[in-house]
Amino acid sequence: MKAIVNVFLKEGVLDPQGKAVHHALTSLGFNDVKDVRVGKQIILELTATDKSKAEAEVREMCETLLANTVIEDYTIEIA
Amino acid sequence: MKAIVNVFLKEGVLDPQGKAVHHALTSLGFNDVKDVRVGKQIILELTATDKSKAEAEVREMCETLLANTVIEDYTIEIA
Repeated sequence: MKAIVNVFLKEGVLDPQGKAVHHALTSLGFNDVKDVRVGKQIILELTATDKSKAEAEVREMCETLLANTVIEDYTIEIA
Repeated sequence: MKAIVNVFLKEGVLDPQGKAVHHALTSLGFNDVKDVRVGKQIILELTATDKSKAEAEVREMCETLLANTVIEDYTIEIA
C-alpha cells in the first residue's frame, strides 16, 4: 500500500524557498506568477493492507516526525 | 489559477533523504514501512486564465528551473 504525504507551511508562515523560486522565475521572464509555495512530498511504501489502519499509522508518523506541526500542515492520501 | 508541480527523483536514482527518513521511522518503531521517497511539491499561483496555456508555461518552468530533468521527473496539475 502506498501513502502520499504532502507537507506544506501554514498560511502566514514566511516561505523563503518559495520567495527565491518566485524571484528566479521572474528573472527568467515568467511574469504571470503571483505566488510560489514550496513544500515536501513524501511517498511511503507500506506493508499494511488495511486502509484505515495505514492512514492512522501515517498520521502518527506525520505528528512525530514528518511534519513540524507548529508551522506546517499536512495531507495524507492512501493509494 | 493554481498549478501544483510535484518533482521527484527518477526510479533508480538514490534518494538519501528518503533513506534517512526511512531509518528514522524504523528507529521510532514504525516497522511496516518498506520504502520512502522524498520529493518537492511546488504550488504556483498564476494570473493566467487559460488552462492549456498555463500548463504549457508551467511545463517550461519545470524544464528550465523547477526540475533537474537528468535525475528528476515531474507532474503538473492545474486546479
